[in-house]
Formats: sequence, structure tokens, C-alpha cells
Amino acid sequence: MKYGEKNISKAKLEKWDNPHPDRDYTIEISFSEFTCLCPRSGYPDFATIKVNYVPDKYIVELKSLKLYLNKFRSQHISHESATNRIFDDLKKLLKPRHLEVIGDFNPRGNVKTVIRVCL
Amino acid sequence: MKYGEKNISKAKLEKWDNPHPDRDYTIEISFSEFTCLCPRSGYPDFATIKVNYVPDKYIVELKSLKLYLNKFRSQHISHESATNRIFDDLKKLLKPRHLEVIGDFNPRGNVKTVIRVCL
Amino acid sequence: MKYGEKNISKAKLEKWDNPHPDRDYTIEISFSEFTCLCPRSGYPDFATIKVNYVPDKYIVELKSLKLYLNKFRSQHISHESATNRIFDDLKKLLKPRHLEVIGDFNPRGNVKTVIRVCL
Amino acid sequence: MKYGEKNISKAKLEKWDNPHPDRDYTIEISFSEFTCLCPRSGYPDFATIKVNYVPDKYIVELKSLKLYLNKFRSQHISHESATNRIFDDLKKLLKPRHLEVIGDFNPRGNVKTVIRVCL
Amino acid sequence: MKYGEKNISKAKLEKWDNPHPDRDYTIEISFSEFTCLCPRSGYPDFATIKVNYVPDKYIVELKSLKLYLNKFRSQHISHESATNRIFDDLKKLLKPRHLEVIGDFNPRGNVKTVIRVCL
Amino acid sequence: MKYGEKNISKAKLEKWDNPHPDRDYTIEISFSEFTCLCPRSGYPDFATIKVNYVPDKYIVELKSLKLYLNKFRSQHISHESATNRIFDDLKKLLKPRHLEVIGDFNPRGNVKTVIRVCL
Amino acid sequence: MKYGEKNISKAKLEKWDNPHPDRDYTIEISFSEFTCLCPRSGYPDFATIKVNYVPDKYIVELKSLKLYLNKFRSQHISHESATNRIFDDLKKLLKPRHLEVIGDFNPRGNVKTVIRVCL
Amino acid sequence: MKYGEKNISKAKLEKWDNPHPDRDYTIEISFSEFTCLCPRSGYPDFATIKVNYVPDKYIVELKSLKLYLNKFRSQHISHESATNRIFDDLKKLLKPRHLEVIGDFNPRGNVKTVIRVCL
Amino acid sequence: MKYGEKNISKAKLEKWDNPHPDRDYTIEISFSEFTCLCPRSGYPDFATIKVNYVPDKYIVELKSLKLYLNKFRSQHISHESATNRIFDDLKKLLKPRHLEVIGDFNPRGNVKTVIRVCL
Amino acid sequence: MKYGEKNISKAKLEKWDNPHPDRDYTIEISFSEFTCLCPRSGYPDFATIKVNYVPDKYIVELKSLKLYLNKFRSQHISHESATNRIFDDLKKLLKPRHLEVIGDFNPRGNVKTVIRVCL
Repeated sequence: MKYGEKNISKAKLEKWDNPHPDRDYTIEISFSEFTCLCPRSGYPDFATIKVNYVPDKYIVELKSLKLYLNKFRSQHISHESATNRIFDDLKKLLKPRHLEVIGDFNPRGNVKTVIRVCL
Repeated sequence: MKYGEKNISKAKLEKWDNPHPDRDYTIEISFSEFTCLCPRSGYPDFATIKVNYVPDKYIVELKSLKLYLNKFRSQHISHESATNRIFDDLKKLLKPRHLEVIGDFNPRGNVKTVIRVCL
Repeated sequence: MKYGEKNISKAKLEKWDNPHPDRDYTIEISFSEFTCLCPRSGYPDFATIKVNYVPDKYIVELKSLKLYLNKFRSQHISHESATNRIFDDLKKLLKPRHLEVIGDFNPRGNVKTVIRVCL
Repeated sequence: MKYGEKNISKAKLEKWDNPHPDRDYTIEISFSEFTCLCPRSGYPDFATIKVNYVPDKYIVELKSLKLYLNKFRSQHISHESATNRIFDDLKKLLKPRHLEVIGDFNPRGNVKTVIRVCL
Repeated sequence: MKYGEKNISKAKLEKWDNPHPDRDYTIEISFSEFTCLCPRSGYPDFATIKVNYVPDKYIVELKSLKLYLNKFRSQHISHESATNRIFDDLKKLLKPRHLEVIGDFNPRGNVKTVIRVCL
Repeated sequence: MKYGEKNISKAKLEKWDNPHPDRDYTIEISFSEFTCLCPRSGYPDFATIKVNYVPDKYIVELKSLKLYLNKFRSQHISHESATNRIFDDLKKLLKPRHLEVIGDFNPRGNVKTVIRVCL
Repeated sequence: MKYGEKNISKAKLEKWDNPHPDRDYTIEISFSEFTCLCPRSGYPDFATIKVNYVPDKYIVELKSLKLYLNKFRSQHISHESATNRIFDDLKKLLKPRHLEVIGDFNPRGNVKTVIRVCL
Repeated sequence: MKYGEKNISKAKLEKWDNPHPDRDYTIEISFSEFTCLCPRSGYPDFATIKVNYVPDKYIVELKSLKLYLNKFRSQHISHESATNRIFDDLKKLLKPRHLEVIGDFNPRGNVKTVIRVCL
Repeated sequence: MKYGEKNISKAKLEKWDNPHPDRDYTIEISFSEFTCLCPRSGYPDFATIKVNYVPDKYIVELKSLKLYLNKFRSQHISHESATNRIFDDLKKLLKPRHLEVIGDFNPRGNVKTVIRVCL
Repeated sequence: MKYGEKNISKAKLEKWDNPHPDRDYTIEISFSEFTCLCPRSGYPDFATIKVNYVPDKYIVELKSLKLYLNKFRSQHISHESATNRIFDDLKKLLKPRHLEVIGDFNPRGNVKTVIRVCL
């Protein structure tokens, strides 16, 4: 087993109770060190992932979100799939009142891509 | 007792009479040295707290606001709870005509969060 | 009496006839060296005062405005009261068609405040 | 007579025929070296004068505009009067479809003023 | 055959299944090293090509897009034709819900051109 | 005859067929080295000329546009006439769906002028 | 007596023991809210005071420095004398290995002045 | 006599005793509203005048310097002569240990000039 | 004869007496609207010409310098020759103590050139 | 044969006589649209090539330099070889008194390279 993988393997998205489900308020999260592997070439891709949402009953716990995002490091996945999957996992976990996920990827072969998914 | 704690322990939010309750005007406050403790890891978190409001009968006294915000230094509290609690305490104290509180937190584990609560 | 004080003590806001009361036009004034004293601690406060107005019969004479603003130097007055009082004095003097006064104060105890009053 | 004064003394605003009165188009002029004298203190004032207009039958000849603006150098005139007078003289000369004149004055006694007059 | 040419000669635009055809989301791609040949002078032209779209059933595979754009390197084609052809090829391949292609060309003979084509 | 003059003397605006008359798309052209002569003083004027249009049946060939603009080098023409004439010549040649021409002239005698003509 | 004045009247420069007199290190202090009165006109002057020094046996206590600088608020003193006096007082108090004091004054009558005094 | 002219006509450079002739320190003065008249065309010239010096027995009084520089407003003088004359007058008045005068003139006929004179 | 040409045709470099030959001082001149014709293609070239010198007995009169530089407008001359010729003409006219001439040319065919000649 | 190719195929570096071999002066050339092919992957590389030299008997003709640099477009050559070859060809052609060639390449796989060769 590679080092650190024990921490990563047990990582999963956790939710906490929203301390104020009685009101609408927004939570904007930005994670600038996302990396995954290109499904075609196997080379690493890098991105900033942004998550903006209005919580309902739950909020995402930030450290679990970080560890969840870190797990993409060894996955072969396209820009579009990665962004949509993060969107799906957060939507399923939190059932938020509003949700937007943006994958802002570094250029590859001089091609720069930004993916936006929104409720 | 550590030095200075006497000053802090007696800190509480104070209100002054609004010198001009007859008109709507806006007060925008920004406090860039907010710090609290992560309820999960115990590590310190840092944020800028912004308070924008239209006063009714009362305004918040600025030094008491500073001391009030300083008291979060030794509290274990999440980003969401801290922002909402400041909102609740100011709303209860001032019963303002309009109120917005923003918690703009420094990145933790490369995750940056901004919380916005609004009347 | 120290030199110069004679000039300052006789300062009061003066109005001149608006040379063109027949049309609406805007006058934007900015004064970046406003200072007064905190009514709680006695320490000095610093601000930029902005005055934007559409004159009716009168315009404010600029040197008298400067001397008027300079007189706050030795007054103990809160951010909110200072901004509202400048608004009131100009409104009473000029009876302008439109008036906005902004007090943009330097941080005190790391708390920054901006007060906006508008007709 | 000093050299050059002959040129200046005969300066007056000249109009040329608008080469295209059949269509609406805009002309934006900016003159950053305007100077006049304060009517109260006698000290020099400095400003940038901006003229934006849609011509009808006439356009202003640029060198005559420069010489016209240079003539304020020795006049005692307030910020408000100078801006309105330039507006009036251009309006009377050109009868334009649209006209805006802005006087953006350098700070005096740390007071900065901007005057805007518009059809 | 020179090295690398095998890779280039077999380049053609490929489509992948959109992993989330069930929702509207946007993909923004920017490619800053586009080059083709001027049909008049034969000299090289350089441009940044931007592709913004909302996918329907398909997404464009990024490496194939890069290789497709690289193939213009030896083509004699005008700014207008190149931008429109990229638009046509992507529209035909992807049948996207929305599509915009921008060709932002470097100055030639001190003349700078930007072409925008949109569904 | 000096070298190069043959090329210049035969310069005239050329049109090419619009490769995609079936759709609306925009072409933005900027030429930063325009120069002509002041009709009053005879001194050189300098400008950036911007042409933005939606082509109908024709597009302007860029090198012929450059040579056309270079021909103003020896013409005595006002800012307003030059901008309007470029507008007229392009409108007559291309009969475009939309056309805007901007002449952004360098200051003369510290007077800066921008002319905008639009369909 | 107004509130707070007791604090100000007892202000004087205090020194603390340098915790590391065994080595040379630099301390750079900047105070952007210095104000005094012009000895000629009686009008207020504003400046940023910068103090850079290498301590020997003592360092200056920062709150006492602030209160010391605040005391200039009601003194009639020239730019040159103010900067030199701060230099002298700090030199006498601290006997530092190196000392530089800069008075960077806001423009008065459009004249900007910077005074630099150095060991 | 117009108001204010009495103040201007009696302007001449004044010196004050250097409060600290015992040490070398530098005084940097910048005046951005200098204007004089071109000796050839009679048109106004504009400049920023910078004076940097190390005083000996005397320092220049700032208001008298401003009024002295304002007097050039009606003088026909070249860039070179104006800068050298300011240098000479200050050198004669102050006999400073070091002196540099820079005349940074606005472009005239698109020609920009900077004159530097130094002890 | 077109208007203004009389002024241009009689242009030649003029020298004035240096008002202060007794001291070394520097004069820095910048002219941003230089244009000449390429000896190969006949197309226009554009440059900023910078002249920095320490005068001896003479200074160059600025308007004559502008008219002298304007005369290159219709000359077919290379970047290198133009810069060296300006250097030679000024050196011969002024016999300065120091002289530097820089020709900073706009890109041609995407090739940018800067020529520096120095005593 | 496609149009334009005739021009390209006959391109070779040309030298002109230095118009001023009697003095040392510098020529700085920058070409921002250099492109060649990676010898390993076959993918295009992009660079800015800078040439700085002090000519002896010859100067390089700029258009021939541009066409010479354009010829690298279809060559498989490493960053190091390209820069050195340009250096060698210019050194052999011009035998200059001083010569520096810099190849400033765009990042490849996020690796940026700058090659400098100097006499």
C-alpha cells in the first residue's frame, strides 16, 4: 500500500446538520489543488473546483470535502465527468436548495477548459 | 488568570441610540482579524467579518463589536455557525431595518469558504 | 493666541448663489483629511468625506467647507453622528435637489466603517 | 507686446460645417491643461475639461477650442461657473443634438471637485 | 516520415458521450496557439480560438480538438473562413444546444481582427 | 519612381465574398498606425481606426484595407471627415448588416478627440 | 475633562529591554495617521511617519509611540522640525545602532514634501 | 485690483532657519502645477518641478516656494531657463549642501522634455 | 500649395544659446510620432525617437526639432540610417558634451527593432 | 503551388551595408511568432526570438530575417538547437562586434525554457 492511502481510502463526504435551516444563506467553497488523470493519455490534470450552494438540512463538512476531492488524484476521468460527478455526489448528500459546481482546469496541450454545472 | 482576560471576559455587545432614526442610512463594517477554532481539528481559523446594516433605533458600538468578535478566539465553532451566530446576536441587539453578515474565511487545507447571511 | 487660529475660529459654512439654477448638474466633492475624536476612547479618528449634490439656489463655497470640516478636529463625535451632522448642515444650508454624504473611516481596532446618508 | 500674444488675443471659438449632418455620431474631446484663478484667493486652479457631443449643423474647430480654453488662464472664476460657461458657449455656438461638459478639478486645500453639466 | 507526423496525420475530431445529457451545463475551451497561412501572401497567421458550448448528446474530446486545430497549420485560409469552418465542424459533430466560436487573430500589417460566430 | 510607390498607388479597397452569408457574425478590426495631415496647420495627425461590422454578401480584404488607410498619409483632412469618410467607403463597398467606425486620435495641442460613427 | 483625555495626557515614550541585544536586526514602523498644525497658517498637516532602526539595548513600546505621535495633533510645528524632533527623541530614548525617520507629508497648496533623517 | 492679487504680488522666496543644521538630512519637494509661457509661441507650458536638497543653515518656506513658482505663470521662459533659474534662486537663497532641480514638462507638439540640474 | 506646407518646407534644426553653459545638466526629449517610409517596401514605419544630451554652448529649439523630425515622413530610410542621421545632425548642430539617440520602432512583419547610438 | 509559397521558398538571410560602421551602436530585434516542431513528439513549439547585436560591416535586412525565422515552421528541432543555429547563421553572415540570441519558448507540459547564446 502506498503511503497516505490509508487516510485517503477511508475518506468519504460527511454532512453536518445545518445550524440554521430556518433561513436561506449561501456557502461558497473554492479548492485550488484538484488533480486527476486524463483518461486518454494518463497524464495528470489540474483544476480549481468551486462549489456554491444554499443548504437545506445539511452542510458539507470541509475536511471530508477536501479528502473526497483528493481521491480523484488516482482516477482516470474527463473534465466533464469529474465536474458532473462532484455535482451529483454533493446533490445526493446535501439535497441543497441551490447548487453550482465549476471545474476550472489548467491548460492541457495549450487547451484550457472550464465546466459549469448548476441546479 | 492570563493577562488581558479580564478585559475580554467582560466584553459584550453594546448598543447606542441611533442619532438619526428618522432616516434610512447604511453602515458598513469590516473586521479583518477574526479568528476561531475548528470544531473538528482544533486548529485556528481566520476570517474577515463584514456587517452591513440600516439601523432602526440602535447602532452597534464599535469597540464592543471588536471585543465581541475577539471572544470567538477560544471557541470551537464551524464557519457556518459563527457567521449565523453573529447575524443572530446583531439582529437581536439592534432589530435593524436591514442586515447582512458575511464570513470570508481563509483557506483551510486549501479549501476556501465564504458564508453570506441576509435579512 | 497661536498664529492661524483666528482664521479657524471664524470658519463657518458659506453658500454662494448657484450660477446656473436653471439646470440640473452635479457637484462631487471629496475631502480626504477629515479627523475627529472618538467619544469613547478620546483617540483620533480619520476619514474621507464625500459630498455629492445637485444644487438648487445655492452652492457651497469650498474653502468654507474645508474650514467647517477642519473644525471636527477637536470634537468628540461618533462616525454615525459626524456623517449625519455634515449631511444635516449641508441640507439646511443648501436645500439641494439631491444630496449624498459618505463618511469612509479608517479602521479603528481593526474595525473599518463606512456611513452613507442620502436624500 | 510679448511674442505669441497676438495669436492668443484673437482667439475665439470657431465652428466648421459638420461634414455629415445627415447622421448622429459622437465627438469626445478631453483637455487636460485647463487653468483659471480662484475668485476668492486669487490662486491658480487646474482641471481637465471633457466635452462630449453629437453635432447637428456644426462642429467645433479644435485649435480655436484650445485657445478659447487657454483664455481662462487669467480669469477669476469658480469651478461651477467655469464648467457651466463652457457648456453655455458651446451650446450657443454649436446647437448640438447632445452635449455634456465635465470639469474635473485638482484638489484645492485638499478638497477635490468634479462638476458635470448635461443637456 | 518525420517523427510525430503519424500522430498528426491521423488527427480528426472525436466525440465522446456526454456523461450528463440530462442537464444543461457549459464547457468553455480556449486554444492560444492556433496558426494557419494567409491565402493572399502565404505568410503565417496566429490566433487564439475560443469555443463555448452547452453539450447535448456529445462532448468534444480535447486532444482530438487540439490535433484538429493543429491541422490548420499548413492550410491557406482567411480569418473569416477559418472561424466559420471550426464552427461548422463542431456544430456538425456535436449538435450542441448552444455554440459560440471566436477567432482572435494577431495583428497582420498592423491590422488586428476578431471574428465571432454564434448559434 | 521611389521603390514601393507602385504598390501604394494601386491600392484600393477590395471585397471578398463572405464565406458564410447565411449567418450573422461579427468582424472587429483595429488599425493603430493611421496618420493624416491637419487641414488647418498642415501638421501630421495620428490615430487608431477601429472597424466593427456584421457582413452581408461581402467582407473587406485586410491588406487592401491597410493600404487604403495608408493613403490618408498625404491627405489634409479633419478628424471628423476622416472617420466619416472611412465609414462611407466601407458602407458603400460592403453594404454590411451593421457597421461602426471609431477614430481615436492622439492629442493635438493637448486636445484629445475620439469620433464614433455607427449605422 | 472629556473622556479619554486622561489616557492621552499621561502618554510618554516608553522603552522595553531588547530581547536580543546580541544580534543586529531591524525594526520598521509605519504610522499613517500623523497630524500636526502648520506654524504659519494654523491649518492641519497630515503625514505618514516611518521609523526604521536597529536596536541596541532597548526597543520602543508601540502603544506609547502611538500616543507620543498623537500628541503632535495640537502642536504648531514645521515638517522639518517634526521629523527631526521624532528622530531626536527616539535617538535619545533608544540609543539605537541605526536609526532613520521619514516624514512623508500630504501636499499643502499642491506642494508635497518628504523629509528623511538618518544616523 | 482683483481679490487675491495682493497676496501674489508680494510673493518672494523666504528662508527659515534649519532647525537641525548639525546633521545632514534630505528634503524632497514636488510641485505638480507649474505653468509658464513658451517664449516662441506664447502658448502655456505645464510641468512638475521637483526640488531635492540637503539643507545647511536654511530651509525654504513652502508657501513662499509655492507662490514663487506660481509667479512663472505669466513669464515667457524656455524649459531650460526655467529649470536653471529655479536652481539658481534656491542655491543663492539656501546655499544648501546638496541640490537637484528637475523640470518634467508636459509634451508640446508631441515633444516631451525633462531637464535635470544638479550641484 | 496646400495649407500648412509653407511651415513644413521651411523647417530646419535651430539652436539657441545654452542659458547655463557653466554647468553640466541633462535634457531628455521624447517624440512619439516619428514616421518614415521603408526603403524596401515603401510602406510607412513608426517609431518613438528619444534624445538625451548634456548641452555645451547650444540647446536645440524644440519646435524646430519637431518639424525636423516630421520631415522624415516622406523619406525612404532604414531604421538604422534614420537613427544615425538624427544623431549626426544633432551632434553637428549642438556639439554637446554627451549625446544619446534611440529609435524605438513599431513591429514590422512582427519584427520589432530598437536602435541606440551614443557618444 | 499554393499562393505565397514562392515567396517563402526563396527566403534566405540577407545583409545590408552598415550605414555607420565607424561607431558602435546596438540593434535589438524581437520576433514573437517563432514556431518549430518538437523532434520527439512532433507537436508544434512556440517562442519569441530576440537578437541583440553591435554591427560591424553589415546589418541584417529585417524582412529576410523574418522569412528565415518563418522557415523553422516545418523543422523538427529542439529548443537548444534552434537557438544555437540562429546564433551561428547570424554570426557567420554578419561577423558582428557583439551578438546575443535568446530563445524564449512557451511552456510545454508546463515546462518553460529560455535559451541564451552570447559572443
